[in-house]
Amino acid sequence: MTRTAAIIGGGVIGGGWAARFLLNGWNVRVFDPDPQAERKLGEVLDNARRALPMLYDCALPDEGTLTFSSSIAEAVTGADWVQESVTERLDLKHRVFAEIQSADPAALIGSSTSGFKPSELQQGAADPSRIMVTHPFNPVYLLPLIEVVPSPATDPAAVETCKTLLSSVGLYPLHVRKEIDAHIADRLMEAVWREGLWLVNDDIATTEEIDNAIRYAFGLRWGQMGLFETFRIAGGEAGMRHFIGQFGPALAWPWTKLMDVPDLTDDLVEKIASQSDAQSGHLSIRDLERKRDGNLIAMMRALKQQGNASGRLILDHQKTLRATPDPASPMLTQSRVIPVDWTDMNGHMNEGRYGQIFSDAAEEVMAAVGADDDYVASGFSYFTVETTVKYLAETHAGERVKVLSRVTEGGGKKLRCLHELIRASDGTVMATCDQLMLHVSLETRRTCEPPEHVAARVAHLAALNEGD
Amino acid sequence: MTRTAAIIGGGVIGGGWAARFLLNGWNVRVFDPDPQAERKLGEVLDNARRALPMLYDCALPDEGTLTFSSSIAEAVTGADWVQESVTERLDLKHRVFAEIQSADPAALIGSSTSGFKPSELQQGAADPSRIMVTHPFNPVYLLPLIEVVPSPATDPAAVETCKTLLSSVGLYPLHVRKEIDAHIADRLMEAVWREGLWLVNDDIATTEEIDNAIRYAFGLRWGQMGLFETFRIAGGEAGMRHFIGQFGPALAWPWTKLMDVPDLTDDLVEKIASQSDAQSGHLSIRDLERKRDGNLIAMMRALKQQGNASGRLILDHQKTLRATPDPASPMLTQSRVIPVDWTDMNGHMNEGRYGQIFSDAAEEVMAAVGADDDYVASGFSYFTVETTVKYLAETHAGERVKVLSRVTEGGGKKLRCLHELIRASDGTVMATCDQLMLHVSLETRRTCEPPEHVAARVAHLAALNEGD
Repeated sequence: MTRTAAIIGGGVIGGGWAARFLLNGWNVRVFDPDPQAERKLGEVLDNARRALPMLYDCALPDEGTLTFSSSIAEAVTGADWVQESVTERLDLKHRVFAEIQSADPAALIGSSTSGFKPSELQQGAADPSRIMVTHPFNPVYLLPLIEVVPSPATDPAAVETCKTLLSSVGLYPLHVRKEIDAHIADRLMEAVWREGLWLVNDDIATTEEIDNAIRYAFGLRWGQMGLFETFRIAGGEAGMRHFIGQFGPALAWPWTKLMDVPDLTDDLVEKIASQSDAQSGHLSIRDLERKRDGNLIAMMRALKQQGNASGRLILDHQKTLRATPDPASPMLTQSRVIPVDWTDMNGHMNEGRYGQIFSDAAEEVMAAVGADDDYVASGFSYFTVETTVKYLAETHAGERVKVLSRVTEGGGKKLRCLHELIRASDGTVMATCDQLMLHVSLETRRTCEPPEHVAARVAHLAALNEGD
Repeated sequence: MTRTAAIIGGGVIGGGWAARFLLNGWNVRVFDPDPQAERKLGEVLDNARRALPMLYDCALPDEGTLTFSSSIAEAVTGADWVQESVTERLDLKHRVFAEIQSADPAALIGSSTSGFKPSELQQGAADPSRIMVTHPFNPVYLLPLIEVVPSPATDPAAVETCKTLLSSVGLYPLHVRKEIDAHIADRLMEAVWREGLWLVNDDIATTEEIDNAIRYAFGLRWGQMGLFETFRIAGGEAGMRHFIGQFGPALAWPWTKLMDVPDLTDDLVEKIASQSDAQSGHLSIRDLERKRDGNLIAMMRALKQQGNASGRLILDHQKTLRATPDPASPMLTQSRVIPVDWTDMNGHMNEGRYGQIFSDAAEEVMAAVGADDDYVASGFSYFTVETTVKYLAETHAGERVKVLSRVTEGGGKKLRCLHELIRASDGTVMATCDQLMLHVSLETRRTCEPPEHVAARVAHLAALNEGD
């Protein structure tokens, strides 16, 4: 049966919640008195409709129905979940909760608040047991973390229902067992924010320099392992106890302006070390290094494909390493190592990646005939219309390979290549690709004759192949 | 001409530096009196040789020559760069610098220290002008950030030479203009470390919960944009001034135990806002959102391919959404949205990704004949030996597509499919793929007959197709 979420407050956060539920097949009822609410929520929803389905390699459920309610009572009555994301004012939240519980005493209520503890939210409520914090992170339609924070007055069964329900829409409920100001993640972020303000205030670094210091280094580590598992690797085989012992003294040093530090007692060292063992002890340091490196390589290659952040740095560096191949037959069009993100469930290179490496080889052939990046920018290109790939041997991550390419047909709009993928270590031919490309106008997206200078080079290469 | 780096101290950090230079074609001379140095450095180098080349879509230069020197003088004389990564003891570093400068007064020296400022390193040096901090991040062979910190006594020309040289091996030199304890990145990390210790100390969260709070939320944001650009988006069209005004009061709240905060004066607000404008003002908030979402999608999909972190969460959620297709002809084997990381320089889906979606479709056909994940785990599978793809229309990110698959041949070891990629909105056939697979033993990696129950289902599907 289709479930229903009530969204009270439809800004960027409420809109993100609405999108997360809708795109997972829930019906959503929104209450927000702002006359601009529908437009604002629509903008968030546009982003989400584009983004969230891209995470999945299968279709999401059919989208639920979105309705705007004219009252809180209309929005919440009978809903399976009520998510409150109104302005961070406690009196306002209390009024909203009273209205929800008066309309539907059974309503399960989560608050998106970062500023208030659940016990504060529950003050004066008709039924405190059904109120908790469910704190998301922007963009709510992509990031999975939800801090689920009950107070002692919250019904444990309500917390379990909440966790099941959030998991069912792809979220990760992190059960915060003790309520504290700002929960967990915002405490960590706030620490960095305060130190960042000092760095700008003292003219040590600009906002951009601080962002670069984060995203080109520990930001990438934290995006896949977080803080403690990363430091466990730094401790090496000697382990977490050793690491803390080694770096503990730095706590007394002015390495941040934020100087309130806990005493690093034997008990605290032992607590951290044993929690770290429970978290990561099933993996050796070498295993953790391999896992970290695989994650970092895949993430940085992903950013490279997007042309952003650390991926942009790799693209820039790569430009200094590449040279357009000499027109020859065969032509050396690829020489590279197979990266970890190209393998699949069979443990070898996915067949799609053969298509990619031959596509990359074809780009080099194009560059050699004058159809390079500048040419593409000028509005012309070659598009592939047919490929036949023969898979002759398995290819694995870490193997060094090359591609040799021949132009086998080159008249008019046609550019036909025969590529061979070769293992560098022993010369084994691992796959071949017969690829037919046609010259196109990028404006009309239709085929057209190439200009004389390109046609001449294509013909020259085709003639070279006949002499092979 | 091949350049030479001298590495003084060959542990995890020194080894990472050695690998970065070697794999970029430099010769490397290492001095480390530890009798285990060669083994330890070899382990780092093994990781690096596997990992670093995977970032690039072309070959790195031929690896340089690695030699172990028996003295500092032998290692550094005539080297283009000297990188010091010895134990964090100032007296030891001073002795090392004295020995370097006595052997080669022209040596350019960078120190990997996080604990000392360059002016401290320079105390008592024969030539302070050629000493600076060049602080890397583990793993040095993958992460690009190097904090380059001169003191006022460092020769500005030496700093420029250093930056050029680091960039040439794919690193990102962040010039820290004012020396401070722990430079920039470690100040931010140390703030989080201190707050993290409090959270464990006070039994608010375990190390694993803290890591999850980071890697499922702001860690992913910081890995691509850092702190300030992310917060700029949170400020919305109203901008950074508005954002700081809104969240500034939180600085007075106990949102972290680390309570030393700068006064948020008008001057500081203005400084942050104008630096943020200089950094990101050329992009609208909508542009920044799209950029952020593209990066997050690509990174999370990369982690999904690795089966780790937030990518593991998506895989688990996806399992609840997928069903094995009913054996039919045609069979609906794919229904999905084209993600942003599948496009290429022509702005449309890369031809390799057609291979991937047809490979995914083939996995569904395999599941339908009983060759599912469990079957693969039991040691048998189907491998593709030949595909012919016809590209009929361009496919773009965000488009919803489906694949219909038919088994066109199914005797003995053979499983032949004809797949059609179809645009969901209008039914246009965008590509077709004729795919021949053979049944294999994953132990011998050779073809073999499938068991009776699989063969029967393959034959059934092939017969259905004849009836089409």
